[in-house]
Amino acid sequence: MNNSDNTVLQRVRALSATAPFVQHLGIEVVDAGRGWCETRLPLAQHHLQQTGVVHAGVQATLADNTAGAAAATLLDGEEQTIVSVEFKINLLRPATGEALRCRSEVLKGGRRIIVAQADVLADDGAEKRLVAKAIVTLMPVVSP
Amino acid sequence: MNNSDNTVLQRVRALSATAPFVQHLGIEVVDAGRGWCETRLPLAQHHLQQTGVVHAGVQATLADNTAGAAAATLLDGEEQTIVSVEFKINLLRPATGEALRCRSEVLKGGRRIIVAQADVLADDGAEKRLVAKAIVTLMPVVSP
Amino acid sequence: MNNSDNTVLQRVRALSATAPFVQHLGIEVVDAGRGWCETRLPLAQHHLQQTGVVHAGVQATLADNTAGAAAATLLDGEEQTIVSVEFKINLLRPATGEALRCRSEVLKGGRRIIVAQADVLADDGAEKRLVAKAIVTLMPVVSP
Amino acid sequence: MNNSDNTVLQRVRALSATAPFVQHLGIEVVDAGRGWCETRLPLAQHHLQQTGVVHAGVQATLADNTAGAAAATLLDGEEQTIVSVEFKINLLRPATGEALRCRSEVLKGGRRIIVAQADVLADDGAEKRLVAKAIVTLMPVVSP
Repeated sequence: MNNSDNTVLQRVRALSATAPFVQHLGIEVVDAGRGWCETRLPLAQHHLQQTGVVHAGVQATLADNTAGAAAATLLDGEEQTIVSVEFKINLLRPATGEALRCRSEVLKGGRRIIVAQADVLADDGAEKRLVAKAIVTLMPVVSP
Repeated sequence: MNNSDNTVLQRVRALSATAPFVQHLGIEVVDAGRGWCETRLPLAQHHLQQTGVVHAGVQATLADNTAGAAAATLLDGEEQTIVSVEFKINLLRPATGEALRCRSEVLKGGRRIIVAQADVLADDGAEKRLVAKAIVTLMPVVSP
Repeated sequence: MNNSDNTVLQRVRALSATAPFVQHLGIEVVDAGRGWCETRLPLAQHHLQQTGVVHAGVQATLADNTAGAAAATLLDGEEQTIVSVEFKINLLRPATGEALRCRSEVLKGGRRIIVAQADVLADDGAEKRLVAKAIVTLMPVVSP
Repeated sequence: MNNSDNTVLQRVRALSATAPFVQHLGIEVVDAGRGWCETRLPLAQHHLQQTGVVHAGVQATLADNTAGAAAATLLDGEEQTIVSVEFKINLLRPATGEALRCRSEVLKGGRRIIVAQADVLADDGAEKRLVAKAIVTLMPVVSP
């Protein structure tokens, strides 16, 4: 599950490039393979909460997006896309630093339901700390 | 729990105005009273997913933010603020329209833990449809 | 959504009677109609946590079961059954009393995914207090 | 985090022995150390759903209980106990076999909030399959 796959990575990057909110936020696809995906979000002032830490909504968007990408790596054709059914995220520690990183792995693939976990890490250059963890339920659907 | 309270509303609006990501996204506080809050997000292209519906992360941010505001209406002084412990959101229907609206109500107040539900509605001018529902666990903390 | 439906009620009761853990725990179907169900669990010593309140697992079972029954009221034929995809439950207040009651309502029906909320109330004869709230994602499947 | 600790194990077993529903269900504490716990539940007919798989409520109880035990390993004195704030569980695969096993690890300790993940495995003697995953939010409180 950890082998990077260039074909998969290009497909996930192409998909991500067409998602307006993902682009607006600044999420980059770092790596991907069958059943997993890694992303990165360079942090700016507008991603913050009034307390100076990254807003929970930014962390949730990153987790949901990365889980969707991990799920999308399991799709065989381009006639399908992934939609989120639900997710839960626990905000474990204050998120601060230069960037957030997220790694998502599929826990259960399937034709009807896909479940992925997504770990959000705060990266301040020196160390990476787990700041949030999400479990996401997704569904493959026919592309609109 | 449904009485609008102007003092509470002004306090919630002032708090919201200091939150960079909330301002960046465009969330407006519509009304508030003790234990509840209503918000609105006029929709733009950059809020969307590649499928043309509002990104789950936008809906999650709106729900989390509105629940935080509902919880903040219970705080007595300005030396306290609210942080999110976790939330879960179910994306029930495709979210499209002119704006999203969110109404959050506190289910359980407390000194240590506050739990609020947040309903996200898609508003296309004519009708409002429930598109997502979140349950949010929050915690009052001393302001930084 | 609040009209009791005797045909639906009999079907839900028959289904519940075949579920070993539901019977073992002592859950009773009180009422049901299209899209909703109400259940009751008379409390005994063996339902408790060491602190004297009802174990979170008992509340979770009641919520999951009642949500499954509410979802099952939407099925047209007996060739289908309901399975739980996931649920989240917030334990809001200590659960004590003579019985627990649960009311579940479907928030979103569908051929692929059904989402229901389930409120758990502690009933001590005089008053009923909301002690837990769950949101449950379910899926209709062909009966085994 | 993986070192078994006999003092901790004895303390968790003693705590578990006083919890009526945990005993009623038949959950056994297998091993524990600082920040983690492993449990086992030998399966019987009364743990099942009408479809022949283990009821989601049984899996939820096992996950919640094991997470509570993992959190309890972090407590310093006997004047504190652990209560569940909320949990979410994803039912990933049909749970069948001779026994369920659960391993929980604390993701975030703290004086106010503890978060643990709990993996539920179905054990049929030959292999163990991940059948459910829960993330549990817990809170240390003064013992009643």
